[in-house]
Amino acid sequence: MPRHFSRLIIATWWLALRCFTVVQAAPGGTIARWDIFEVTQSGPADGNPFGDVEFGARFTEGAQTIRVNGFYDGGGTYRVRFMPETTGEWRYETFSNRPELAGRTGTFTVTPATAGDHGPVRVAHTFHFAYADGTPFRELGTTCYAWVQQGDALEEQTLKTLATSPFNKIRFCVFPKNFDWNHNEPVYYPFEGTPPNRWDFSRFNPEFFQHFEKRIGQLRDLGIEVDIILFHPYDHGHWGFDRMGAANDDRYVRYVVARFSAYRNVWWSLANEYDLLESKQTSDWDRLFQIVQASDPAQHLRSIHQDKIYYNHNQPWVTHASIQNSAAVLDYGRAMVYRDVYRKPIVFDEVKYEGDIPARWGNLTGQEMVLRFWTGAVVGTYVGHGETFLDPHDVLWWSKGGVLRGQSPARLAFLRQILNDSPAAGINPIDKWEEIAIGGQPGEYYLAYFGNDARSSWPFELFHTGVADGMKFKVDVIDTWNMTVTPVPEVFELKKRDAYYFADKDGRAVTLPARPYMALRIRRVH
Amino acid sequence: MPRHFSRLIIATWWLALRCFTVVQAAPGGTIARWDIFEVTQSGPADGNPFGDVEFGARFTEGAQTIRVNGFYDGGGTYRVRFMPETTGEWRYETFSNRPELAGRTGTFTVTPATAGDHGPVRVAHTFHFAYADGTPFRELGTTCYAWVQQGDALEEQTLKTLATSPFNKIRFCVFPKNFDWNHNEPVYYPFEGTPPNRWDFSRFNPEFFQHFEKRIGQLRDLGIEVDIILFHPYDHGHWGFDRMGAANDDRYVRYVVARFSAYRNVWWSLANEYDLLESKQTSDWDRLFQIVQASDPAQHLRSIHQDKIYYNHNQPWVTHASIQNSAAVLDYGRAMVYRDVYRKPIVFDEVKYEGDIPARWGNLTGQEMVLRFWTGAVVGTYVGHGETFLDPHDVLWWSKGGVLRGQSPARLAFLRQILNDSPAAGINPIDKWEEIAIGGQPGEYYLAYFGNDARSSWPFELFHTGVADGMKFKVDVIDTWNMTVTPVPEVFELKKRDAYYFADKDGRAVTLPARPYMALRIRRVH
Repeated sequence: MPRHFSRLIIATWWLALRCFTVVQAAPGGTIARWDIFEVTQSGPADGNPFGDVEFGARFTEGAQTIRVNGFYDGGGTYRVRFMPETTGEWRYETFSNRPELAGRTGTFTVTPATAGDHGPVRVAHTFHFAYADGTPFRELGTTCYAWVQQGDALEEQTLKTLATSPFNKIRFCVFPKNFDWNHNEPVYYPFEGTPPNRWDFSRFNPEFFQHFEKRIGQLRDLGIEVDIILFHPYDHGHWGFDRMGAANDDRYVRYVVARFSAYRNVWWSLANEYDLLESKQTSDWDRLFQIVQASDPAQHLRSIHQDKIYYNHNQPWVTHASIQNSAAVLDYGRAMVYRDVYRKPIVFDEVKYEGDIPARWGNLTGQEMVLRFWTGAVVGTYVGHGETFLDPHDVLWWSKGGVLRGQSPARLAFLRQILNDSPAAGINPIDKWEEIAIGGQPGEYYLAYFGNDARSSWPFELFHTGVADGMKFKVDVIDTWNMTVTPVPEVFELKKRDAYYFADKDGRAVTLPARPYMALRIRRVH
Repeated sequence: MPRHFSRLIIATWWLALRCFTVVQAAPGGTIARWDIFEVTQSGPADGNPFGDVEFGARFTEGAQTIRVNGFYDGGGTYRVRFMPETTGEWRYETFSNRPELAGRTGTFTVTPATAGDHGPVRVAHTFHFAYADGTPFRELGTTCYAWVQQGDALEEQTLKTLATSPFNKIRFCVFPKNFDWNHNEPVYYPFEGTPPNRWDFSRFNPEFFQHFEKRIGQLRDLGIEVDIILFHPYDHGHWGFDRMGAANDDRYVRYVVARFSAYRNVWWSLANEYDLLESKQTSDWDRLFQIVQASDPAQHLRSIHQDKIYYNHNQPWVTHASIQNSAAVLDYGRAMVYRDVYRKPIVFDEVKYEGDIPARWGNLTGQEMVLRFWTGAVVGTYVGHGETFLDPHDVLWWSKGGVLRGQSPARLAFLRQILNDSPAAGINPIDKWEEIAIGGQPGEYYLAYFGNDARSSWPFELFHTGVADGMKFKVDVIDTWNMTVTPVPEVFELKKRDAYYFADKDGRAVTLPARPYMALRIRRVH
């Protein structure tokens, strides 16, 4: 992230924290594309409005009509939220099984997006992401599973940390966590009832969700996508949110989608380590995915994260593969296989964490964390960050947020800058059967990474795809750890060497400093 | 393969070549389990019997009835072939849209399988194979794409070579091949018509299929499974078998399945490099798979082989993943990813070939070929062999068969012997996130491979899964290239070292000879 941009964020984030978090237009007014238009109505508060009352609206512009489910927000208030994706004159009409909530109509105008708003993130170029307006989204995520359950002081500290961090995506859970270094009770509970485990799963606690969506909105205003984890196994029956049964699961998912889907920065992660949730079968996950797919008018990204047994990411409702594999980017080859078998963006949401806990999944050095990011990046995949440094108050970033202490985030900001300058079509393997540590776009852009290999030179040669005799290239030597970019003065010119490779016509090589963690950026001179 | 067994095969194969190849029982007689029971009837020879006449039989034993499609074999002869999978008293009744072919009945007795017949190969233990009687099948395949199109002299030489080779599976095409080193016209064509490209795709040439199934039967008698490739792109429009259109494709597949499915050694490979067959879409392959699945009463193994774009091997009709990836077993990690994502047996049917052609996919050394097999084996996957040595008469094993010249087959025979002595449940990764070059069954059997690493010792330590203090193990040092097994005199005894590993209680190590291609076999002493 460029420095001036970081400062801008710092300057604005306090403001953002104090603003309303649902951007909304009064009916009849105007709203910017990809903001949230909200219709609020009063209605019955008796019985169980969460289950008894159906409420929603149809939004129409030109030939398109989009059906959006609403939700009950407590105190007799019903809401329906809509993220318009096209500018123009829109009208809406509510529907309900209660006459007093049905048939209300209104109009509003959707104006072009506000500056800096690129819309929701979608899959682009098969293996990559882009915002809805086409701007590439170079995913660089972190994980703070339960940061939103920690109370305002720590949560606001986490937001402050994120405001200057390189991360543009964060994974976290809806439900509280009961796991090592995180046995504290949350501030809010998602259902009506009495802690720890006497809940009426048919009645949601609006306060919980108002708090949660405030955090989503604040992250949106910081330019950060939220990968919302709908289920996880770290309840262990303490609250019982991991074993509510199919009917309660379905109602919960519908409610969450109705509340959150109008936030443009939402991604759906069906679960963390789904295969450890023993009360659910694959058919349950299939059904839950399909509920999200059918009920989310914005069609936000959908994935699921596993421990040992992979979900079938080839299912059509999975938009990208979210993979836990501690060893995924120990080499370049595995990452490439994931691309081949799924033909979707590959996000390694867990490859171990930078930290110093005894468990081997949480004691990477900063160097090793950064090495894994670069390894994944040059083969066109996306690696995720996490941090697990022991703390006297058990505030580990990976679980509770707080501050970042590791050495990797600064280097990941540098990586993000390099990726921001890479081709819009993304980085793909160039010669995946032989020279696998070089990715890019053939004939235009190459990113080579040498990892632990402390070599002193690299003979200038490129795989034959997309190149020809006489093409000229400039090279930057990149120190990924010390965060320097050093242009090489020479211009290299290609000449065919054999059936597979073209080399510099004068046989020149690029000099390297015989240190690890070096990379090369090779760009065509037109 | 044990030596004495090889000799036995040599002694019997000439006999096998001269015998009938369809084992058949006269109606009313007896047949062994998994042999072929054939019903022959005379019927109409006018019109187009291949398309006009429906013919088949229902086979009944106890409560089970199996519907089997028949086929027209020319000259007014109709046949239906059946491979009974259970012993007992069977009866059959033919069905047809022609009264003269319908309603014929008969009975026969199925006796236990003949010695050495273990039935068809099935998936076992998720990632492995076993014969129908439960005997593990340690897949060790080779490829001779067009060996069956080369005329009797060369074809019989190929059979003779296979009789003493280590291979228990061979991949080859139904259709002839028009590709480098194989531009000769075949002896037989599958359709009526005039070469090269004036065919009546609605009329099969029985002589072609009689010849082809003779070869299937001969391979069966040598104990070799046949991976029959139904389509391939190496026609390039010369004969046009690569672009017949959906109706002709479907009729052809039904005919092939009706003729061959009673051979117990059949596997179906829908295609080689399916994604290079530009006239077919994924939906065509889905349909063809489903035709095979629905019409094959024996439910033989089904797979498909790709060039660059993977078929979705998670589809339920795919029994195992047949993968082409030149780099699949350059390390251990990629092979493991394939297992994780497909949860089916992984067969690397193409990882480059031993040979000396200029193309980089066909010039591996014998050492490199063997290294790749061992790399795949210790992570519980199956690597395929091929050989491409230049020949003055263009007889390359990979395409035409003939003789084997490489250094790898003898070492692969040695590997097969090691695998034959491994646990019935197969070799699986032990600690796939860290020490990935050791596979086996936790607490019982481990196979460690060191590849190019010429180490002089290996500290005796095992991952914690399935082991406990006090367990004792014996070790064999295996030289995979020189084909020696050297028992280590010591018995090692485990003691817990840390949260992840157990080590020898006295801290002992296994001495190694500081050469590449070494392996260890570690077996529990009970």
